[in-house]
Formats: sequence, structure tokens, C-alpha cells
Amino acid sequence: MPQVVSTQIQLRTRPDGWPVPENFRAVDVTYDDPRPGEIRVANEFISVDPYMRGRMNDVKSYTPPFALGETMTGGAVGRVTASTVDGFPVGAVVVHQHGWRTIAQADASTFRVVPEVPGAPLSLHLGILGMTGMTAFVGLSAIARMQPGDTVFVSGAAGAVGTATGQIARLLGARRVIGSAGSAEKVRLLTDKYGYDAALNYRDAPVREQLPALAPDGVDVFFDNVGADHLEAALDVMNPGGRLALCGAIAGYNATSRTPGPDNLTNVITRGLTLQGFTLGGHLEHAPEFRSRMQDWFSAGDIVWDETVVDGIDHAVEAFLAMMRGANTGKMVVRTAV
Amino acid sequence: MPQVVSTQIQLRTRPDGWPVPENFRAVDVTYDDPRPGEIRVANEFISVDPYMRGRMNDVKSYTPPFALGETMTGGAVGRVTASTVDGFPVGAVVVHQHGWRTIAQADASTFRVVPEVPGAPLSLHLGILGMTGMTAFVGLSAIARMQPGDTVFVSGAAGAVGTATGQIARLLGARRVIGSAGSAEKVRLLTDKYGYDAALNYRDAPVREQLPALAPDGVDVFFDNVGADHLEAALDVMNPGGRLALCGAIAGYNATSRTPGPDNLTNVITRGLTLQGFTLGGHLEHAPEFRSRMQDWFSAGDIVWDETVVDGIDHAVEAFLAMMRGANTGKMVVRTAV
Repeated sequence: MPQVVSTQIQLRTRPDGWPVPENFRAVDVTYDDPRPGEIRVANEFISVDPYMRGRMNDVKSYTPPFALGETMTGGAVGRVTASTVDGFPVGAVVVHQHGWRTIAQADASTFRVVPEVPGAPLSLHLGILGMTGMTAFVGLSAIARMQPGDTVFVSGAAGAVGTATGQIARLLGARRVIGSAGSAEKVRLLTDKYGYDAALNYRDAPVREQLPALAPDGVDVFFDNVGADHLEAALDVMNPGGRLALCGAIAGYNATSRTPGPDNLTNVITRGLTLQGFTLGGHLEHAPEFRSRMQDWFSAGDIVWDETVVDGIDHAVEAFLAMMRGANTGKMVVRTAV
Repeated sequence: MPQVVSTQIQLRTRPDGWPVPENFRAVDVTYDDPRPGEIRVANEFISVDPYMRGRMNDVKSYTPPFALGETMTGGAVGRVTASTVDGFPVGAVVVHQHGWRTIAQADASTFRVVPEVPGAPLSLHLGILGMTGMTAFVGLSAIARMQPGDTVFVSGAAGAVGTATGQIARLLGARRVIGSAGSAEKVRLLTDKYGYDAALNYRDAPVREQLPALAPDGVDVFFDNVGADHLEAALDVMNPGGRLALCGAIAGYNATSRTPGPDNLTNVITRGLTLQGFTLGGHLEHAPEFRSRMQDWFSAGDIVWDETVVDGIDHAVEAFLAMMRGANTGKMVVRTAV
């Protein structure tokens, strides 16, 4: 096998506020033949996700921060191009966490073979069939303990996790699903395509003013991707015993000063609410159940999706920043294939 | 049986900010003979508790607000003086929720006979043997799912619930128990009498500055009676997977304007924290376990307590306000016996 050159994006310095291109650098890494136990994978898509912003900081967290000078890790999907390991034949589709690189080469145990699903582009293994779909499923079922008949509010509902959350909430028997997004077009998409019963554009007026009219019977489950004004508005309308799955707080990820929290946290006590923060890494025990149920839903034609695809690993940083600004609808992925 | 006159304290108007005596009135109610099914009880102690401030407002909550013009409900303990019902003999000690009145007369099903415990004044049935002890137990075990080896931080630790919480945390196997209180004397009491390993005086310096040194290995369980600066300081030091039982937020109960929440709620996500608000009324299924374990601990001499006793139902409002200002150590009760 020939040597190969893998183009990789590394974190050079930690951002202060919004990341800038100078925080990153592209490097070329040359791989020799895979050693025994290793496989080589040509990535087709890499994932850019909001949680990555948090890992660019050096803070106490479940997951350690990204290392400076090393290649950005994260979800990616590709095909095996060289293998020393049974069960990882050349041509097989694999997902992995080796992140922002055109070619990944490492111990086979760090890859997972996934089936090729009829009608599904490989990128869906980074989206609704993969991490973002599972995040929605785990947040609703394990964290928020959603029950059939619940009213569910999802913030950032047109994003990768949000579009999955609305559909899954409905498939799990929600009585009413409400979403927020940042444009009239996205709001239409939520109700027309993603099964939301009602949606609001948070740029039109404060969420706190808009939400009560959309949730006349209150909210039982809040799935939060945004934080800040969305969390505050949700706390106003939560029903007693309500559960809040805090998945993301993208509103504050690039803040350089601390911003105060919601002014109505007392409702947590008087209404007996539960707020639980989570990152998927702490709940991987739900993966088999998620894959089984999602496969059924997908096969039955119950799942729809959007993707925003940016071409070229050299544009990965731009794709990440555009996603942080909400330029995507559905999952944002970077196509690495040349 | 003769008619009797019961002096009762009623809520006349809803307070705006701190309650004032004019929000209340004393009335005399005359009771005829108990009807079939009723008993008559001469109260010995009535309970004044922080949660009552919330019920003076007209807001959405698990428990309905106090009705205007009706007698203040709440915990009380007394002895049966007239009875038409088997199982409620004259002289028996009963607890009930008929509240701020010298004599209670009502259907026997609204009273519960409690044993006379050697060495325990009847008032303890309103404190560590009763609602406040059970609040501490439920908050630690059912809400915060405290495990042996956990480090526990309790805010408002010298109050009725706080003094119970420290002892129960230790009896449940906490590795380290840390408390906050509002005077040097109370801080000494926490470490000298109540088994706290460390305590801070929140009037000395911001809690956020003091807490990290007392919790060098972080905090696994936070039992919050105060809210505001205490919650914010706790969020700084919580360990991944930590649980926060939000029992009270006395810091904000009398606020007339909304105050912003903690500036570090993002830690809830990155550290996978769970915040759960609770009021005891939603968790009464734990009563049998609490009574059984508390009886064992009490009999073994493992339980200590303080009480602040105010004499005379005419001083119930003063007692309530003094408690809200932190003038009590341990449970605040009003002795109604003449």
C-alpha cells in the first residue's frame, strides 16, 4: 500500500469569544501502511457541532477540552480503504470520532461499521441516524422522561438536533410539539415538514412574549438547545412536574462575559421541575435502543431530514462558524471527498 | 360538651414584598359540639415555615395559594380534647394541617395520631420528627439521590431543614458535609453540634469566594434552602453528575422585582448536573420510610435539635417574619398553649 497524505484541521489557539480562522491551522500528515490492528478510512463527511465550541475552552467538563496543536476530534463517516482487521473489509462504511481529517488511520477498535441504509446518504450517520438523532432520542426519553400526551417545546428547532427532536417527540406520542427558530422560512419548515404543531420566530419578538399563546395548556417537556431567553420563557410556562432536558446553550457559547441566568428559577421549586443537563457521551448505554427504534422509523418512511453541506475540509472552520450563527437548516456537515 | 372559642390568624390581604402585620387579622371562632366523625384538638404548637411566604402570593404552584379571609393553614400539633371517633381518644397527640388556630375541630380523617416519644417535646413533630426532618430526608435521598461517600453542601444550614439535613447526610454516609449560615455563632453551632465538617458565614464574604476552599474536591450534592448567590456558588464547584435538590429560595421570597439567576447555568450541561425543585407535598410516599429510619436514629440518640419558641398565637406573624429574617436557630414554632 502506498503512503497517503491526510489533510487535517488542528486547534492552534483557544478562541476568546467567537472563534476566528487564526485559531486553527491545516496540516498534512503522511501515513505509512496500516500496522496490524489498524485500518485506513477515507472520510466522506465530517461533523461540525455546537458542543465543539465548549471543548475549545479549557474548562472542567465531562469531556476534556480539545488539545492545542492536535487535530480536532469529532464525528466523521467514511469508507475503509485499507485494512488489516477482520470485520472491517475495504469498502465498508464506518463512523468514528477521529474528526477533521480527510483520511483517518488508527486501531480498528476506534471505528464502528454501520449498515448502508437504502435511501440514506452516508452523512445521515452523523445526523439523524447518528449522534444528533440519538441526542434527541436520549434527551426526550431518558433525560426528560417524555410520556405520550406531553406537550413538548424545542428551542433551536430547525437545527440538527431540533429537527430530529420534533419528529421523535411526535413518534413517541407527544400531544403537541412547539418549536422556535430564527427565520420565517425555518418556522414554516418546522410546521410544514417536521410535524411541529406551532412554531415561533425568536427574532420577531421576545420568546417570553410569544410562547404563552402557543402553549395555552403549558409545557411538560422542554428540550433546550439555546439557553438564555429560551430557558427563561420555558420556565414561565412549565406545568407542575415538568422536565427540562438541557442539551445546549448556543446563545452563550461565544460570550466573553458571564450573562445572568433566568429571573424565574423559583418556579423550579414551586412547580417541582427537574432540569437536567446532558451530553451524549454520558448516556451511550441507550445506543442499542436508539438504533433499533430509529431503524424501524426510518424504514417505515417516518423520518425526514435536511442537511447543509459545505464542500472541502479547508472550509470546515467556515462551516462550523456558519452553523454557530444559525446559517444551517438541519445538520451541518463538511464533505471531504475530493 | 361546652362551646369553645378558637383564636385564629387569617390572611387578610396579599403581601407586596415583606409581609406586614396589616396583611393578617386575628378572629375568634366559636365551635359547637363536634359532629359525628369530628374531633376537637387543643393545639400546643403551630409551625411557621418559609414555604408559607410563597403561598401568600396568587401564583401557579403545586399547592394552591392561601385563601384570603380564611385561617392560615399549616402544620400544628396538639391533644384531642373531645372526640366522637374510635382511634382518637381524648388526650391523644395529633398532628394536622389546620394551621394558625388555638383549637382545631374537624373531621378526624384530617388528623394523624403520633406516638409520644420519650425525650421529645411535642413540637418536634413539627420539626425534625415531622415535616422539616422529612423534607431533609426526602431531599437528600429521593431528590438528590445522595450516596455514601458524597460531599454535600447545605445552604441555610442553621435553619430547621438545614440542621436536619446535615445530621441526616452524615447518618446516610456523606464523606464531607459543608454548611452556610448567617452568623459566627450559627457557623460554630454547625460544626460543634450538627456534625458539619466545615461552615461559612455568608455575611463575611461572597459565598462564591468562600466555598471553593471548603470544598477542595468539589460537591456532589447541593441541598439549597437559599437560592441566589448560594446556588451560583454551588454551580461553580459541582462535580460532574452532581445533583442539586432545590428546596427553598428564601433569598428571593420577599423580592418585589425579578432578580436574575446564576451566571453559570452552562455548567448544568457541561457537567451533566440535575437540578430538581421539590415541595414535600409531592413526595409523601416516602413518609413511612422516613418515620421508620428517623425513629431508629432518634432512639439511638443520634439526633440533636434546636428550637426557637415564640409564645402566644397573637405573635405568630412576628414569629413568621423573624424566621424569614433568620432570627431562629433550628425550627421556629409558636406555642399556643395558654
